[in-house]
Amino acid sequence: MLEQIPTKADLIAAHQRILPYVHQTPVFTSSWFDAEAGKNCFFKSEHLQKTGAFKARGAMNAVLVNAEEGKLKGFLTHSSGNHGAALAWAAAQIGAKAYIVMPDNAPKTKIAAVQQYGGIITFCEATLVARETTAAQVQEATGAVFIHPYDNYDIIAGQATATMELLDVRPDLELLFIPVGGGGLLSGAALANHYFGKAKVIGCEPLNASDAYQSFQAGVRIPVQNPDTIADGLRTSLGERNFNIIQQYVHEIITATEDEMKAAWKFTVSRLKQLVEPSAAAGLAVALKHGDQRCGILLCGGNMDLDPFA
Amino acid sequence: MLEQIPTKADLIAAHQRILPYVHQTPVFTSSWFDAEAGKNCFFKSEHLQKTGAFKARGAMNAVLVNAEEGKLKGFLTHSSGNHGAALAWAAAQIGAKAYIVMPDNAPKTKIAAVQQYGGIITFCEATLVARETTAAQVQEATGAVFIHPYDNYDIIAGQATATMELLDVRPDLELLFIPVGGGGLLSGAALANHYFGKAKVIGCEPLNASDAYQSFQAGVRIPVQNPDTIADGLRTSLGERNFNIIQQYVHEIITATEDEMKAAWKFTVSRLKQLVEPSAAAGLAVALKHGDQRCGILLCGGNMDLDPFA
Repeated sequence: MLEQIPTKADLIAAHQRILPYVHQTPVFTSSWFDAEAGKNCFFKSEHLQKTGAFKARGAMNAVLVNAEEGKLKGFLTHSSGNHGAALAWAAAQIGAKAYIVMPDNAPKTKIAAVQQYGGIITFCEATLVARETTAAQVQEATGAVFIHPYDNYDIIAGQATATMELLDVRPDLELLFIPVGGGGLLSGAALANHYFGKAKVIGCEPLNASDAYQSFQAGVRIPVQNPDTIADGLRTSLGERNFNIIQQYVHEIITATEDEMKAAWKFTVSRLKQLVEPSAAAGLAVALKHGDQRCGILLCGGNMDLDPFA
Repeated sequence: MLEQIPTKADLIAAHQRILPYVHQTPVFTSSWFDAEAGKNCFFKSEHLQKTGAFKARGAMNAVLVNAEEGKLKGFLTHSSGNHGAALAWAAAQIGAKAYIVMPDNAPKTKIAAVQQYGGIITFCEATLVARETTAAQVQEATGAVFIHPYDNYDIIAGQATATMELLDVRPDLELLFIPVGGGGLLSGAALANHYFGKAKVIGCEPLNASDAYQSFQAGVRIPVQNPDTIADGLRTSLGERNFNIIQQYVHEIITATEDEMKAAWKFTVSRLKQLVEPSAAAGLAVALKHGDQRCGILLCGGNMDLDPFA
């Protein structure tokens, strides 16, 4: 279990550790997208990752690092989103139990995903206090290993492997566009670029949930209050370990409006024919309005409600 | 220009002819899809084809076969859908003009696609008579080579190449699920399977546009009247050449309800994270309710209106 900022060797070890379980997702390009966007874009396809999001990487790494204790007592987290499903999936890979605390208003599709991977759900009220209290109760009852969704160095090292793979394919990238919510993906990407790349790392955040932008400017963490954005994966506030890394290794944080994200989502999905979730649109929207260089864009996941269409 | 049912050699020649221009699209699999569907499915990804649909294959073949005359006088078709865009794209590949007659109520996205590829649009009223009259007028004025969307042997040979490639990757397929509208794709697939495969070929049609099913049962073509289905690419009635081939080489035609297609679309898009158009859902819906074997499913295209989401 990592107790400090992951080193280059830690990232390589995490990648080797999870490779038997996760996909090395493809890197897409689109001449049609590039022609209209006026730049060369390389899309890292974590919507095609196990569980439909990059979260499988960090969860798998944390589960393997804590496998001995976890097999005995299980794993635990609180999550309304992709991390809960990813932890349930990762625990199942080594035959361990996963206890997932979820708010009782969580979307049905998210609940179904956790159940599908065999996660044991405890519902609670939809407040952070209720989540943490309930998680503490489950931990006391089970002794399960708690895996924070992002404020955890093993999670960060796991998420970093997506950017490692992208840089392995395209070491010449000049800009990296990475969505930021709790900061697990962004802090991992920034470390991966620090050790393996030479790009400018740009955190991409909804204007309506811009705590990372504000914190980055102020130099102290400023949590977001009840953010209203379509990017449901980016409503979380930055974690402490994540902010520390982001301050050192991220070059800039740029926000996108809801309209910019909707337009970028539509533009991208219609051209790539890939289903990416609204959170991915933050990176796309910023990439579309910024620069004319070789851009790496992390498509963080593909889990979204399709009911409006069907 | 082919004047009779394409032979095995004709299909091979068509494939060689178009290969420098079109994508050999990937064949997807999904263990999650298979586990829930209870069969092994191989998805031929024509939504990733040039112009976002298999139509690029037939159009490119017809354009190359008629290149000499077409370069002088241009190409012509009437289409409210993917064939118009595909012909405009294909003509542009050899520097030829494309005249596309479109109904004045055609979706904006379809109009934009034709314009994007440099097609010269003539609008007409939204009736078959108006389309044919207008096309005849444009042909008289320009002398352009008319390329029918499906009732044309060079088109059929071109569309057959999608199934040829699928069978080249998976020669052991037992069932092939192919959407049917005008019958260009289905007649081509049936020929490809006749020459290169050993599968049972199943035409998949919306119940609300089931002229192929009815014609197949009756042994004579029975055109459909004003079909009401989400599968906008399958509203057309079978062509004469297409029906002739389908009668000989297709094993069965099975219909799907609108609800079955909507559920199949949602099931597939959420699991594969691939954007396929509603017409592809006909094949998916029939495949999901039929058999437990090695299934080839032709994802015919990925062009659809994303406005409900953005």
